[in-house]
Amino acid sequence: MTKFLAEIDVMPKKEILDPQGKAVTGSMKNLGLAEIQNVRIGKHITLEIEAASAEIANAKVDEACKNLLANLIMESYTFEIKEA
Amino acid sequence: MTKFLAEIDVMPKKEILDPQGKAVTGSMKNLGLAEIQNVRIGKHITLEIEAASAEIANAKVDEACKNLLANLIMESYTFEIKEA
Repeated sequence: MTKFLAEIDVMPKKEILDPQGKAVTGSMKNLGLAEIQNVRIGKHITLEIEAASAEIANAKVDEACKNLLANLIMESYTFEIKEA
Repeated sequence: MTKFLAEIDVMPKKEILDPQGKAVTGSMKNLGLAEIQNVRIGKHITLEIEAASAEIANAKVDEACKNLLANLIMESYTFEIKEA
């Protein structure tokens, strides 16, 4: 068994309003950073997984994203796996 | 002025307990994914910034991270900038 590290990004879909991101975009102006626009805030998740191969680790992480980490109605996800 | 896209990861520091990550690690077992361990959950932030150069965009995003996006006592951040 090999240990892999996964880095997962879960973001609100483009069509979905992101109120937290909107609020932060507004705060940038007050900080004197008006050139920053269109802030969107999602989750960054790291995890360790033991698997016999990178393909199996990939499939397991995909399953975890689909079933637990992302809400596919409102969010999309991407991830990368590397050997630990 | 050029438009740049920034991708920022804000994660709880290693020494800091991450209760949300711990809870998700526990849930993995119930999903039949016991091989997933040490889940840590932070924020993934994307934003657009107009700047005269990549160096300036870099400095502005660093300022935004320090002053607004990350709590440096409990969190650390990394980011990448690319031309839009």
